[in-house]
Formats: sequence, structure tokens, C-alpha cells
Amino acid sequence: MKAKVLINGYGSIGKRVADAVSAQKDMEVIGVTKTKPDFDAKLATELGYKLYCAIPDKERVKAFEEAGIPIEGTILDVIEEADIVVDGAPKKVGKENLEKIYKPNKVKAILQGGEKAKDVEDNFNALWSYERCYGKSYVRVVSCNTTGLCRILYALKDFGIKKARVVLVRRGADPNDDKTGPINAIKPNPVTVPSHHGPDVVSVVPELKDKIITSAVIVPTTLMHQHTLMVEVESEVKREDILEKINETPRIILVREKEGFSSTAKIIEFARDLGRKRYDLPELCVWEESVNTLGNEIFLMQAVHQESIVVPENIDCIRAMLEMEDDKFKSIEKTNKALNLIK
Amino acid sequence: MKAKVLINGYGSIGKRVADAVSAQKDMEVIGVTKTKPDFDAKLATELGYKLYCAIPDKERVKAFEEAGIPIEGTILDVIEEADIVVDGAPKKVGKENLEKIYKPNKVKAILQGGEKAKDVEDNFNALWSYERCYGKSYVRVVSCNTTGLCRILYALKDFGIKKARVVLVRRGADPNDDKTGPINAIKPNPVTVPSHHGPDVVSVVPELKDKIITSAVIVPTTLMHQHTLMVEVESEVKREDILEKINETPRIILVREKEGFSSTAKIIEFARDLGRKRYDLPELCVWEESVNTLGNEIFLMQAVHQESIVVPENIDCIRAMLEMEDDKFKSIEKTNKALNLIK
Amino acid sequence: MKAKVLINGYGSIGKRVADAVSAQKDMEVIGVTKTKPDFDAKLATELGYKLYCAIPDKERVKAFEEAGIPIEGTILDVIEEADIVVDGAPKKVGKENLEKIYKPNKVKAILQGGEKAKDVEDNFNALWSYERCYGKSYVRVVSCNTTGLCRILYALKDFGIKKARVVLVRRGADPNDDKTGPINAIKPNPVTVPSHHGPDVVSVVPELKDKIITSAVIVPTTLMHQHTLMVEVESEVKREDILEKINETPRIILVREKEGFSSTAKIIEFARDLGRKRYDLPELCVWEESVNTLGNEIFLMQAVHQESIVVPENIDCIRAMLEMEDDKFKSIEKTNKALNLIK
Amino acid sequence: MKAKVLINGYGSIGKRVADAVSAQKDMEVIGVTKTKPDFDAKLATELGYKLYCAIPDKERVKAFEEAGIPIEGTILDVIEEADIVVDGAPKKVGKENLEKIYKPNKVKAILQGGEKAKDVEDNFNALWSYERCYGKSYVRVVSCNTTGLCRILYALKDFGIKKARVVLVRRGADPNDDKTGPINAIKPNPVTVPSHHGPDVVSVVPELKDKIITSAVIVPTTLMHQHTLMVEVESEVKREDILEKINETPRIILVREKEGFSSTAKIIEFARDLGRKRYDLPELCVWEESVNTLGNEIFLMQAVHQESIVVPENIDCIRAMLEMEDDKFKSIEKTNKALNLIK
Ligand SMILES: NC(=O)c1ccc[n+]([C@@H]2O[C@H](COP(=O)([O-])OP(=O)(O)OC[C@H]3O[C@@H](n4cnc5c(N)ncnc54)[C@H](O)[C@@H]3O)[C@@H](O)[C@H]2O)c1
Ligand SMILES: NC(=O)c1ccc[n+]([C@@H]2O[C@H](COP(=O)([O-])OP(=O)(O)OC[C@H]3O[C@@H](n4cnc5c(N)ncnc54)[C@H](O)[C@@H]3O)[C@@H](O)[C@H]2O)c1
Ligand SMILES: NC(=O)c1ccc[n+]([C@@H]2O[C@H](COP(=O)([O-])OP(=O)(O)OC[C@H]3O[C@@H](n4cnc5c(N)ncnc54)[C@H](O)[C@@H]3O)[C@@H](O)[C@H]2O)c1
Ligand SMILES: NC(=O)c1ccc[n+]([C@@H]2O[C@H](COP(=O)([O-])OP(=O)(O)OC[C@H]3O[C@@H](n4cnc5c(N)ncnc54)[C@H](O)[C@@H]3O)[C@@H](O)[C@H]2O)c1
Repeated sequence: MKAKVLINGYGSIGKRVADAVSAQKDMEVIGVTKTKPDFDAKLATELGYKLYCAIPDKERVKAFEEAGIPIEGTILDVIEEADIVVDGAPKKVGKENLEKIYKPNKVKAILQGGEKAKDVEDNFNALWSYERCYGKSYVRVVSCNTTGLCRILYALKDFGIKKARVVLVRRGADPNDDKTGPINAIKPNPVTVPSHHGPDVVSVVPELKDKIITSAVIVPTTLMHQHTLMVEVESEVKREDILEKINETPRIILVREKEGFSSTAKIIEFARDLGRKRYDLPELCVWEESVNTLGNEIFLMQAVHQESIVVPENIDCIRAMLEMEDDKFKSIEKTNKALNLIK
Repeated sequence: MKAKVLINGYGSIGKRVADAVSAQKDMEVIGVTKTKPDFDAKLATELGYKLYCAIPDKERVKAFEEAGIPIEGTILDVIEEADIVVDGAPKKVGKENLEKIYKPNKVKAILQGGEKAKDVEDNFNALWSYERCYGKSYVRVVSCNTTGLCRILYALKDFGIKKARVVLVRRGADPNDDKTGPINAIKPNPVTVPSHHGPDVVSVVPELKDKIITSAVIVPTTLMHQHTLMVEVESEVKREDILEKINETPRIILVREKEGFSSTAKIIEFARDLGRKRYDLPELCVWEESVNTLGNEIFLMQAVHQESIVVPENIDCIRAMLEMEDDKFKSIEKTNKALNLIK
Repeated sequence: MKAKVLINGYGSIGKRVADAVSAQKDMEVIGVTKTKPDFDAKLATELGYKLYCAIPDKERVKAFEEAGIPIEGTILDVIEEADIVVDGAPKKVGKENLEKIYKPNKVKAILQGGEKAKDVEDNFNALWSYERCYGKSYVRVVSCNTTGLCRILYALKDFGIKKARVVLVRRGADPNDDKTGPINAIKPNPVTVPSHHGPDVVSVVPELKDKIITSAVIVPTTLMHQHTLMVEVESEVKREDILEKINETPRIILVREKEGFSSTAKIIEFARDLGRKRYDLPELCVWEESVNTLGNEIFLMQAVHQESIVVPENIDCIRAMLEMEDDKFKSIEKTNKALNLIK
Repeated sequence: MKAKVLINGYGSIGKRVADAVSAQKDMEVIGVTKTKPDFDAKLATELGYKLYCAIPDKERVKAFEEAGIPIEGTILDVIEEADIVVDGAPKKVGKENLEKIYKPNKVKAILQGGEKAKDVEDNFNALWSYERCYGKSYVRVVSCNTTGLCRILYALKDFGIKKARVVLVRRGADPNDDKTGPINAIKPNPVTVPSHHGPDVVSVVPELKDKIITSAVIVPTTLMHQHTLMVEVESEVKREDILEKINETPRIILVREKEGFSSTAKIIEFARDLGRKRYDLPELCVWEESVNTLGNEIFLMQAVHQESIVVPENIDCIRAMLEMEDDKFKSIEKTNKALNLIK
């Protein structure tokens, strides 16, 4: 029997997780929810998803009817069937949903990176905390930036991380967001250093406590985040060893400027050419030329496709929470294969 | 026997036409050319395209070898096999290729919108000049903006176009172009009014001579062009009649702001959600709410996906030039079906 | 005695009007208001303006004290002294202020373009409605886009305007706004055609009723708006005649692409080089090369510096409402001279 | 007698240095050069600068005449009068000018940051290498980014810099550049880490050899560069001590997010409100909230106005090279006072 997954909040993350669940052999989507009858809602039904109104409210239900988009009811009509809910609601709403809907209805739930570490039982990254989240009920898949950092730090962990310094250059808005700026500015966000991204990594990897310092700015681009890492490790290390570790680590790929990858725009062009749906690139991209060492310090630059990097993590998180597969690498492999990831 | 198509210049347009040719039953790609061994070259070979060096030059051939990307030779090694070449070289280079390669090698050729009307035998739009280009040897598929205008004017033609006034708001660069600006400016381009876009439409539709006035600016966006049309017609016309005509015309779709299509960004999100390769949207998009009339004047706004709108036109152009199908609507239907267009 | 002007809302427009009032011989700023103690508030006091809290609220007053920025009280402590208030509050708040503060306190008031025509006695543009607003109590200085249109239509009026068609390409946000987007999209705004800009012009120039059709989009730039005009007039007209009329009209200047004015960015560079405070350019800029005629239709492109174009209009409006000068051209001349405008 | 300064290349840097020289009591501009008769050339003559053609070429001279912009001759007609030339030519052209014009004509010359350290006698920053450049003939004022780094490292130097790690987020193009992108991408530039900015700092401050590691990306903004610094020092250090040092260091100011400085856009708004010509802000801006310490590591974020930060440095460099003032702090004070800098 397939695990029954309900997607609550069919937005940027929700719609991708829905498609990723559908691509797996061991799970299925029993429904997706929307708050408004827009083109995404329509497409959901065309893809065969059963559509529910995310908010049990008459006016909202009527809006779907008026728009000619058939819904099956509200979330309350389907929640009992679910083995697990993947929450894709906006920042902070996930926590509300957890308290008001998931807990009272005794259904397991995955929250996303917009929620706080302290509001869940544990924090998920497939490489670092799969075992820890095994069988748990309320887990958060960490944010896109944190997921990217967790992956690369996993690749570097055997060198003995003493201090990781990271500057994050964040995209200002997702590509489908036509309201948020800035149009022409660089914004420290937060203006305090270190930023919260370090502690967020620590929520997944407690052993990095006091060992990761992050700082972040927001810039006027929509495609990807970019990170620069400067990581001091226990002893001297060679560039080739790092490249080897990166090659061994799932869901990280190397891109080369000399092959045309001169920017995040070119990486996205590559993903488009690959034929990925929505040009998704859940693989973390490290610029090969940027990988370097000086004594016991490692340098590199990476790019994170914010819209999709957490999608395979949500799939693995489902398997862990529902105890469907106890070997994290097997889950990762199943997920990657179903999603046709490069590795 | 399938028509043998050579793609000379596997760039933004070339790679899309290659995939579109491959999707048809009556034609096949016998080779694609690149000038440099970048990731696009690599992906071409992975897709099974035979790769040739676009420029018969030893140094360039060597560069492919050194990059470990196998090529079959240069364009001169394959040109004789071709029934037709689709030129996808940069602006102005197409004309050079025509004179130096296609004509001497007596192969039919399609040039793109970056070339001039006067350098070819005729100018192609599937709706307007399919019959005229039938059997011809050197034809230009007009630019993305001109193609968008030709389509909508076809939908409006039965109302008797007296004067079409159009302002084009053009994307500054394609999404994969990380060099071209502007970052923060609006540029009249050209600064003279009327712009050359009107005469370019006339190269396809001579009967519109002196009846179309265009003006254009460039703005800092990469996704789509946007056009505002104000079209005086012979007599009073009703909004519903225009919507009906648009609905009847192939390759034009209506989008509604009230369903979430508030900008070009949302239209592209829709194309991504549709699962289109590279989020291509060859269909011209007209905002339904913008369609309006006052007396005998029609108003509307439309968006043009510059990277893909000419792709199905290239396919129909091949059929016309090689006399493979004498009914334009049948060709359009074949193309649309193979490319899975909405209509 | 100088006219006593209170600036309520020392934001983008308010701070410029304050400086412009101070530059005149016949009026003075008796106070400016802010809602928050930010760097603009601090600079206001450093410039010698008496600062008041815009909202009579204890918490807000305390915030100024805590920030170490001395204020003189709240708006209610100064309003009685004022001969006129220039409202610079955000869109829609101006109307509230009118009803709740200005009318009850029986003080004349100028509202800005974010308010509605119907909420005031009349609508002001120095060239068109100076006389009409003479002595009135509640007048709106129309928006930046409308002001730009009014000026150019004044220059063209003697040719007998039959139908003006205009497409407005609007800046997405002001340069100091780091929150508003879009980052990468073109947004029809409004999506309906014609847009409200035509009726807004008519609120100033009733004789243009049914003679002006506008349409607008928003793009990711901060510097200026751009307009393309296509204007049918009574009879055939020569390019030179239009250039002459433009040259005769106050507050319009011609810029030439061949002298380097290839975009709004270059126009702003010019204003910076002129040494204008805040690079303000209240003069409407028409691209000389764009001015053209075909039969009895006129074409041209212009750029509007949204932050400053209405500033001299506010000054003239004060003179009209307070009956300080009954010849509009004399007021315009005084204002221009004090502000060092080109013409 | 005032020092006679020739500005060769009246572009972004050249025009600012010209104005800054004119503002000093002990030096004067004897001429400025341009290659083309654009609006900047015209404004130069309106400001009273004697204009020369930068390239001794008949065609170019004629172009000025045809445009109606009077020139005094070519650079060769004025070079002998000059005590020193400030070169403001584009990247790499400065070196050519040095070899072909300045050295043969035995005139001292200042090159800008686009040139290489090895092509000059020494590299200038007022705080670090004033004495070293005293009396020298061919000196480079380092780039905007390097100048910003030199200043902040001077403020931190007494804490004993062990290792400075810096990530630079660079503006993609200057505001008046309407050709250069990217429009929507983050570009590692260079893609290798460390970048050349560290060695460039070392060209000014040799004692920092092996102690500064930099990495840089380019983003779609025009206003300012942004830097994040993480600096390990000899021993534990307190935040207040850093703020104090910053306060003591000339040409660095603190800005506070809580006062509204949430981004580079707000900093530029502040400079506009100050009434600075061209909104120039040669002062390095450090976000006060970002200044922090953890043990013996210092963190901070700063913003660099690329167009103007090197301007006062050029003035001091003139004084040093012409041996006009032997105390760097006195020169800095004179310059700052004449330019009305905050400090
Ligand atoms: N977009 C990203 O780049 C990204 C990356 C990683 C994590 N996240 C996190 O994922 C979560 C979702 O973000 P997103 O970008 O997909 O947002 P989104 O705005 O694209 O989608 C949110 C969806 O939730 C729906 N919704 C609104 N209220 C709801 C409610 N009360 N209950 C259920 N659904 C509701 C909305 O209709 C919308 O479809 C956030 O926590 C965010 O921080 C986002
Ligand atoms: N990109 C668009 O939005 C768009 C839309 C419609 C029409 N067009 C037109 O299509 C044509 C191609 O434009 P594009 O955007 O695909 O350009 P592109 O730069 O993406 O691709 C051009 C390709 O041609 C190759 N090339 C370079 N020199 C060549 C040569 N001598 N011979 C053969 N190939 C060569 C390049 O390697 C590159 O792969 C132009 O005429 C352009 O105006 C472009
Ligand atoms: N910015 C432009 O491009 C532009 C151009 C023409 C007209 N306008 C119009 O001018 C008006 C002001 O716009 P802006 O761009 O200067 O806005 P802004 O946001 O820059 O400034 C508004 C100011 O009003 C203050 N304020 C807020 N609430 C207030 C209240 N209740 N009473 C008094 N002041 C209050 C704010 O603190 C702020 O200083 C709007 O009607 C707008 O539509 C703006
Ligand atoms: N713009 C910045 O942000 C910035 C900051 C610091 C340093 N710099 C450096 O300053 C130098 C100038 O840069 P810019 O931004 O002012 O460039 P710019 O393009 O704005 O100006 C260059 C000027 O040099 C003129 N010129 C061209 N060829 C010339 C020649 N052969 N001889 C003399 N003049 C010639 C051009 O006409 C133009 O006026 C470069 O080395 C650059 O790296 C620039």
C-alpha cells in the first residue's frame, strides 16, 4: 500500500512536492489544497489532483465554484485519510496549521523552512538527520539556503570542520512573484552579523554549534541564491580531495565556468535544456573553478535553486517519518531515481 | 522519407527548432552545429544530435576535441545531405551564411528575424504567407515581435484594419544572457518613431502598408515582450466578436488577470507548470481583460515569449519550402499537435 | 508678508515641495511633519525645518524623543498658523487628512496625485487650470504621469487635438523604495484598456474628453516613466512646428540620442551633472529624434522624472489658491527661476 | 601658485575629480579631455572647463566642431602646461596613455583602479600610502572596492589583523551605463577564490600579505557595492572599541538600519537629501548594527559608492605626488573640508 500524502498549500513548494510524491512508487497524493481558484488550482485538477479548499470557509468554497473549478470539499473532508500532510503554506501559517489542524486531527506533518526550529520535534536534512527523524510526527524540512549549506557541509565533514564562514547572496523574490522587490538595491538581511542561517544549520547538525558563521544580503534577482564558503578544517587539505568528496555526495553537482556556467542564469539555462519540469534543479551546484584550498582552509562558491532544492528532502522526510525505509541512502536513491536527478 | 533538416547555429532558437523538428513525423534533424564546446554542445550530443563545428576551422575543431565533446566534422561535411538548413546564427551572420554557404551549396535555407527582409526571397508567417513561400528557396521567419503582431492582426483582419498603432515593450536580454543590460533604465529603441517593426510586419503582409505604426522601448526584464495595440477598423465592432476571432485563430491564447495572470512573470509560471520543455510558450498570450473596443477602435495587450514563438513557424516554413503540405492549416495542426500546443 | 506653508508628510514629494517653497521669495515653510524619526526627519531638522509629528499620538511623539530628534509638537499645534497645507501623505491618506484635519481646521489644502479627482474642488496643472483654481480651497495637483501628459498636450493644443493615444511605461518603484517590485516582469497596470490616466488628464483639461486614450504597464526600473504618444490633429502638421511649440512651452526640454541621451539612465546622469539637488528634473524630457509626423498624426516619446515633475506645479498651485499672482506665466517664471529650471 | 591639473578622460571618475580639484584652494583644473562631443562635453564647457580632444585625431576634432562644442585643441596642446595629469580613461587605456603620452611628455600622472599595480611606481590610499607616494611620478589610486577595504582595515589595524575574509557583492554597472547587465543573474566574478581584490589591497598595504582573502560576485544593481567582512584579530575585542575606531577614522560613517538605512537604496537617498552633487558619497558606509565580535573575530557590512569613493583619494594623491603637503591627515582634512564630507 502506498503512503497517503496530503499537500496543504499548493504553492511554489507544495506543487513541486505533489509532483515529486506522484513520481514515487511507494507514496501517492490523496489531495492538494488551495485558498484561491487561480490558474494553479485549475492546473492541479487538470493534472488529476483532487482539489480541496485549504480554509474551511463558505465564501472561499463558493469562489471555487464561481470560477468553475471543481473542488472536493475542504481540508477537513480529507485530512483523516492522510498518513501525513506536507504543509506548503506561507511562512508562519505552517505553525498555525500545525496547532489548529494537524495536531487536533492527529496526523503527522512536515512543515517547511519558513517555520521555526523550535516549533517542531526535529529538523530534517536527508544526509544529516534522516535517522533522527525516523518515526517522528512533526518535522520541519529546513529552508532552501539551509539545505544547500547542509549538503555542502556534509561533503566537507570528514575534513573536520573547525569554522565555516558563509556569505549568502539571496534572490529577492521567486520568479512568479511580481510584487516583491528590491528593483535596484542590495539589502543586508538581516543587518546583524552573524545571521540566523548558522543556527538554522545547527538545528540540523548540532555538532556544528559555534562552528558556522553566516551573513546574508538580498539582491534584485529571482533565479537562485548564491553562497560563498570559507571553511577552516582540522588539517591541510587538497583541492582534489574536496572535489572527490563533492562527487561522492548525493545531490551536489559541479559546474564549470569554462563550459559556459558563468552565472546563475546559465545554470538555469542548463536546467531548462535538461527538460526538467519547471526547470527545477534540486541538485546543489558548486562552481568547480571556485573550489580551492589555502593550508587548512577551503573555499568555494555554490548556487541554490530555491524553488526546488527542498523537494527531494520532503520525499525522504516522508519515508523517514512514516518508517518506510530505514537506510537514508536507499531513500535518497529511490527519490533521485524517480525524479531523474543527476545524482 | 523524412525531410532532412540541418540546424546551423544551436543557440536559443536553433536548439528549440531542433527539438521541434525531432517531434514531427515528417522531418528529422541530420545534424546541429555549434561554434564552441560549451554545455549546450554537450547536451546536444546527449540528446542524440550529430554535432558539427559551425565554422570550418582547425582551431575550433580542436577545441571540441580538447573539451572531450565528440563532433562529426564541420558543417561542410554534412551540408550536402540536407534538404534544408535552418539558420540559427546570430543577427547578421545568417546573411553571411546564406551567401557563403547555403547558396554555393545549393541548399534551401531558412533565416531568422535578425536578418533583413530584403536579403531573402520572402518572409514567413504561417497564417499570412505560407502559400507565398511554397517551394521557395531562401525565406526568413520574421522576428518574435513581428510574429506576435502578425498573429494578432490575422485575428483582427476580418474587421478591416485601417490603422494599427502598437507600442512594444521589449525584454532587454534573453534569460541566459548575463552580459547585456540595461539594469535600470528604459531605452527607446529605436529612438525614432515609427520603428522598423511596422515595415517588418508589412514584409509579411503587404496589404498593411501604411496601416501599421509601431514604436518600441527596451526594459530591464528577460522573460517576455509586451505589446499594446490600438487598432482602428472599418466599422464598429463588439468585444465579443474580437474574443471569438482570437479564439478561432491558431496559436493565440487568452489569459485572465483575475485567474492570476497579473504579469509576464505569471504567464511564465503557467508555462512552467504546464511542464513545457524550457517553459516554452509559442502561443501568443492576450490578456482577456485588456480586449476592449470604443466605436471602431480595438484595444488589447499581449505578451510574446521571444525564445519560442517563432519555433512552430520554422516548422511550418520547412513544410512550405519543401512542398510537404499545401494546406497551411493542416501544417499548423500537425506542428501544434506534435508540440502539444494549446491550440 | 510671505505665505505660510505647512508640509504634511515629508516624504518623496513633501521634502521636495518644502525645499521648493523655501527657494521662493513669496512663501515660506512654517513646518513639516513626519510619522517616524528616520534619517529624513533628522535631515529636515538639520535643514532648519520645524518638525512636527504628523499623527497626534503619544506613542509616536515619544518615538521622536527616544530617537533624539527634537519635534515642536504635532500637526495640531501648527495647523492654525498655516495659510495652506501641502499634503504629501501616501495615496488615499491625503483624502482622510482633508476630511479629518484640513476641513475642520478651515485651512486650504493641496492634495497630490494619489488622491481622486472627485474628492477635491478642482485639479491643477499650471498651464491648463491655473485660472480655474484661483482662490479655491481644496485642489489636487495631478500625478506625475498626468502632469507630463498635460504639459505635452499643452504644447500640441494649437494643432487641434482630435485623438491622443498614449502608452505609459511606468517605473516600478521610486529609487528609495527597497521593498516594491517587480524584479523581473512586465505588469499591465491596469490590465484594462483604456487606463485611468486619460480621464485623469480630462480632470484637468475637460475639452479632451473622449479625445485621449491611455494604456499603462509597470516595469522593473526606478528612474523615470516613459510615454509614447501618437496624436491625431486637425490638419497636416510639420515636425518643425511641433519642435517650435515644444520649445515655446515652459518646463519641457528636448534631449537628443545623438548627444548621448540613449535612455532614462542617461537623462538622470545629465541631471546629476547639472548639480540639481537629488538630481531632480522637473522638466518633461522629449526625445527630439522621436518627434515625427505622418500626415495629421504626431509621434513622440518622452520621459517623466516622477519624483520631481509635480514640485513646481505645487508652487504655482499655492500661488493660485492664495491669489498671490494672477498671471500663470508670471508664476511659472518665478517658480522656474527660483528652482533654476532650464525653462 | 596653484598646482595645474589636467584631467584626461572626463568620464565618471574624471568629471568628479575635475570638480573636486576645482573645489580645492591649492590646485586648479587647466583642462579636461573628451573623446566625443556628448552632453557631458557640453556641460564641461558650461562649467568653465577648457575642453580638449583626448585623442589627437582630425576626425575626432571635427566631430566636436560639427556638434557645436568648442574645443581648445587636443591633449598635446595642453599637456606641457600640466604639473600632473589625472587619467580617467577606461580600464587598460590608462596604461597606454602612461606609456605613449605621460612618460614621453615627462608629466607626472595618476592612473585609476582599472590599471594594474605593476604598471606604476606605487599604489595610493590616503591613509596607508600617502608618505610612500610622496614625490613619486606615476601612481595608481586603487579601485573603489580596494579603497573601501583599505579604509576599513585602517580602522581595524590596531587590533592586529590576522586574517581578513571578505565577500564583495558588486554592482553590475554604473547608473549611467545602459548597456551592461546582467538583468537577472548572480555572476561569480572572478569564479576563482580568492579573487584579485586581496592582492590589490596588498599593493597598498604590503603587511597584509597572506592575511586577506576575498571573493566577489556581480549582481543586477547600479547604486553601490556591498562588502561583508569577517576579520580575525590578535586578541579578543569589544564591539564598542571597533565603533570607536571607525568613528576616529576619516571618511567612514556609520549608518543605522533602525534610522531607515535598510539598503544601498536608502543610503543613496540620504546622499541625495544631503544635496551632494550627483549624490556622491565618498564616505565609506558601515552598517552600525552589523558591527559585531565573537571572541577575536570582527564582523561588519559596508557599502561603497563606487562612483565617488576614490575622488578625495585622487586629491590627496595629487598633494602627495607634487609634495604640496607632507602630513597626510592635513591633506585629508583640507580635501574633506573643501568637499564638505561628513568626516
Ligand atoms: N519559495 C521558496 O523559495 C522556498 C524555498 C524553501 C522553503 N520555502 C518555504 O516553503 C513554505 C511555502 O513557501 P512557498 O514559496 O511555496 O509559498 P507560496 O506563497 O508560493 O505558496 C503558499 C501556498 O499556500 C497557500 N495557503 C495560504 N494560506 C494557507 C493556509 N492557511 N493553509 C494552507 N495553505 C495556505 C497559498 O494559497 C499558496 O498556494 C514557506 O515556509 C517557505 O518559507 C520556500
Ligand atoms: N532569442 C530571441 O529572442 C530571438 C527570437 C526570434 C528570432 N531571433 C533571431 O534568431 C537568430 C538567432 O538568435 P539566438 O537568440 O538564437 O542567438 P544565440 O546567440 O542564442 O545563438 C546563436 C548561435 O549561433 C552560433 N553561431 C555563431 N556564429 C555562427 C556561425 N558563423 N554559423 C553558425 N552558427 C553560429 C552560436 O554559437 C550560437 O549557438 C537571430 O537572427 C535572432 O535575431 C532570436
Ligand atoms: N513618488 C512619486 O513618484 C509621486 C509622484 C507624483 C505624485 N505622488 C503622490 O504624492 C503623494 C505622496 O507620495 P510620496 O511618493 O511622496 O510618498 P512617500 O511614501 O515618499 O511619503 C509619504 C510621507 O507621508 C508620511 N505620512 C504617512 N502617513 C501620514 C499621515 N497620516 N499624515 C501625514 N503624513 C503621513 C510618511 O511618513 C511619508 O513621509 C501620493 O499621493 C502620491 O501618489 C507621488
Ligand atoms: N566607475 C567606477 O565605478 C570606477 C570606480 C573606481 C575606479 N574606476 C576606474 O576609473 C577609470 C575610469 O573609469 P570610468 O568609470 O570613469 O570610465 P568612463 O567610461 O565613465 O569614462 C572614461 C572616459 O575616458 C574617455 N576616454 C576614452 N578613451 C580615452 C583615451 N584614449 N584617452 C583619454 N580618455 C579617453 C571616455 O570618453 C570617457 O569619458 C577606470 O580605470 C576604472 O576602472 C572606475
